[in-house]
Amino acid sequence: MTMVDEATHALTPAQARARFRAGVSAPTSGWAAGYTQTNLIAVRRDWAYDVLMFCQRNEQPCPVLDVSEPGDPSTKLAAGADLRSDLPRYRIWENGELRAEVTDATPYWSDDLVAFSIGCSFTFETALAAEGIPLRHVEQGRNVAMYTTTRKCRPAGRLHGPMVVSMRYIPAGRVDDAIRITAEMPAVHGAPVHVGDPGALGISDLGKPDFGEPARPEPGDVPVFWACGVTPQAALMASKPPFAITHAPGHMLITDRRDDEYRVGRQ
Amino acid sequence: MTMVDEATHALTPAQARARFRAGVSAPTSGWAAGYTQTNLIAVRRDWAYDVLMFCQRNEQPCPVLDVSEPGDPSTKLAAGADLRSDLPRYRIWENGELRAEVTDATPYWSDDLVAFSIGCSFTFETALAAEGIPLRHVEQGRNVAMYTTTRKCRPAGRLHGPMVVSMRYIPAGRVDDAIRITAEMPAVHGAPVHVGDPGALGISDLGKPDFGEPARPEPGDVPVFWACGVTPQAALMASKPPFAITHAPGHMLITDRRDDEYRVGRQ
Repeated sequence: MTMVDEATHALTPAQARARFRAGVSAPTSGWAAGYTQTNLIAVRRDWAYDVLMFCQRNEQPCPVLDVSEPGDPSTKLAAGADLRSDLPRYRIWENGELRAEVTDATPYWSDDLVAFSIGCSFTFETALAAEGIPLRHVEQGRNVAMYTTTRKCRPAGRLHGPMVVSMRYIPAGRVDDAIRITAEMPAVHGAPVHVGDPGALGISDLGKPDFGEPARPEPGDVPVFWACGVTPQAALMASKPPFAITHAPGHMLITDRRDDEYRVGRQ
Repeated sequence: MTMVDEATHALTPAQARARFRAGVSAPTSGWAAGYTQTNLIAVRRDWAYDVLMFCQRNEQPCPVLDVSEPGDPSTKLAAGADLRSDLPRYRIWENGELRAEVTDATPYWSDDLVAFSIGCSFTFETALAAEGIPLRHVEQGRNVAMYTTTRKCRPAGRLHGPMVVSMRYIPAGRVDDAIRITAEMPAVHGAPVHVGDPGALGISDLGKPDFGEPARPEPGDVPVFWACGVTPQAALMASKPPFAITHAPGHMLITDRRDDEYRVGRQ
């Protein structure tokens, strides 16, 4: 699969969202370069407090950038966006089971759904690339690799589950830089949660991610793991709320916010 | 009033909390130097979602550092602390009206109260002082001055109100440094919301703060305004939930967390 080409890279966020609204479906890594992408999770109002508390207690995987009023499919992060249709792919969940993957969630929407927009590690990829740190999954035209770990999130009400991480192979000599750069962006997962041995997170095979696609390391690369906004989906699977809509992993909302806005002290 | 002396400055957080539990009541600025202090707001469970949403939507004045389960007076921020008694002074609110100011809130507690611990600008005072920026209110032994502004917070459900700010006089030549230092601490209000003319925030007289005490400027000082954790109290007054307990302005919870923990990229 080829995700990134000159054309999608140069799109404005509104142009990208219009393509997805029209039915295009692709992972969004590399699209509308320089603009922040977000994870989506929408639950019924009677579960919204649990989700918001879960996010507050697990800010590194679940940094909340916006929350809608019940039923409102708009977001302050993207002018004119419709959260029901402007992401390239959605997952529909019932009682913790994945029921459907669709490109338009409008038929599943209801007026008691509360939508959470959660920060995404794609945001800091711009900053990493700007300092010359290679991104193997982008070079190789793949979705980023994500893994469910054995680290438990702090529960909140009825919501509990494991932390999910994204992994990037980083040249050993640039790991310090990658830590420094991402530490400055706490609203989009911040510094890595782990560097090196995948076994420490309970990951047995980097070649078999739970979400996304595996990337090939280059000689001298080290695996570096960041908390991931797919964590709420793992919590849905574990906690089984009656209904939820999420983005499909890697298929994000492209917002109007510049990635730089989430870099502390650099605005 | 003299708030700061060698003895209180050198106390551990647990020792300070024990004094307050025993009935001592004083503003906490300068106590247990180097440890983070937090604002308290506790509301009934049926208002907790509104408060949490309000804080998410107004993160600069209301950065949430911890939320309790309903009825639980403990916090992960301070081992063994009892939120009902370990702050030096509390305010009891009914329908948006201040009903009582007490040194022990235990008689007012109930098992459906959810307690929010919110970041406080005292946290960044350590960082300012460490870089040689003078703190006039500390020098003068006063509580920091706080003002209700004409800036509106983004509403959330039933909760709405104005932003409250704390003000510190800073030597003109150090304002840039103060901005840089506090911008690195977004979990405790971050960079100033305004520098200079108080009228731009609708403040008519710096000598008459709405909370706390006025400080005297030194020649060449400029007023610098930071978003303030008393903002939820202004929202209580405006939004009139049936019941709430808060700290009294300036009379904070002293946590076990080091101020440095809230400095991005410096851990």
